[in-house]
Amino acid sequence: MTSAEQPQPPAPRKKTGRRPGGADTRRTVLEAARAEFAARGYEKASMRAIARAAGVDAALLHHYFGSKDRLFLAALEVPIDPRVVVGQVLAGDRATVGERVAGFVLQLWEQPETRDRMLALLRTAATNEQVALLMRGFMATEVVAPAAVELGIPQAELRIELMMSQIVGLAMARYVIGVEPLASAAPAEVAPLLARTVQGYLSGN
Amino acid sequence: MTSAEQPQPPAPRKKTGRRPGGADTRRTVLEAARAEFAARGYEKASMRAIARAAGVDAALLHHYFGSKDRLFLAALEVPIDPRVVVGQVLAGDRATVGERVAGFVLQLWEQPETRDRMLALLRTAATNEQVALLMRGFMATEVVAPAAVELGIPQAELRIELMMSQIVGLAMARYVIGVEPLASAAPAEVAPLLARTVQGYLSGN
Repeated sequence: MTSAEQPQPPAPRKKTGRRPGGADTRRTVLEAARAEFAARGYEKASMRAIARAAGVDAALLHHYFGSKDRLFLAALEVPIDPRVVVGQVLAGDRATVGERVAGFVLQLWEQPETRDRMLALLRTAATNEQVALLMRGFMATEVVAPAAVELGIPQAELRIELMMSQIVGLAMARYVIGVEPLASAAPAEVAPLLARTVQGYLSGN
Repeated sequence: MTSAEQPQPPAPRKKTGRRPGGADTRRTVLEAARAEFAARGYEKASMRAIARAAGVDAALLHHYFGSKDRLFLAALEVPIDPRVVVGQVLAGDRATVGERVAGFVLQLWEQPETRDRMLALLRTAATNEQVALLMRGFMATEVVAPAAVELGIPQAELRIELMMSQIVGLAMARYVIGVEPLASAAPAEVAPLLARTVQGYLSGN
């Protein structure tokens, strides 16, 4: 859950402009953010333009929604902050990084509340090229690039992207298309196989 | 290329019924096949029903288009026969099966003539649930099941499906969405990383 999705503190009373903390304004801001991201892509979208389109003060927008990446996650209703996950996964023992990634991925997709949102995101990205490009921009800037620096091995970006392509391919086969026996296999059966692949990509040899 | 796509021998002259070898009849048969496969799925579609819908003799349909799997590949314009590939890949030294699979996959997707058709298939399957289910049925019956028998290791079907999910995920990321640096990486750079993953899935340990 991103901070933008948590209960908001009472907004300061102002006589002019809308209050970013209010439910109506929140909806207006997220709609403006979706439109701006869709029109200009993740990298070129600006918080200032979103604030202007939503009729709110740019400083208040930053105060209530945080930086561009947090607003993006809130606007697309992404149920996790991938940068937080990457940080946690890479912080531990590198010899077991594959296990941690596999465990996290399966937990995310097996829990109904996060699975439904992930399914919606995946289906939208698979059928809407604009959304796919938007996700690509966010992942490249906010996830792959910093994770590659943290990983610190040759071909780090390429390896991370291959790992992600395995995770998305698995999600498509297991949760969207329902390929059997993969779709019905217990998480405990899938986890070590996925872990081995991820370990191969992230161990750098 | 499937045999059904190769130049056809002259059709025998008949006074009644259509000639399956003629270009018009070939088109009629492939349209009837697509309709039957779409309506009933791969497993339940019948050659007899396709012959009836196309107005051709069932025996002649078998003679000119081969068995149901070959007609399926011709109807969906699949540029390879996956069962032939699987046979060749599994016939060699199992210690290098990952290299052979990676080499084949990259060759298939790097050559413009096969890449275009594979892209069209992938885009159609990604946006059309009926086609995705149809492909799933064909792959399960004609590829995964026989390949698992040939592979002969525990969890063989699960492992083959995980391998296929990596291949499809890679194709989406590299060729459809164009994730960088993966999209621009030389095949020689991607091949060993993919080979290692495939080897892990197919080596059974």
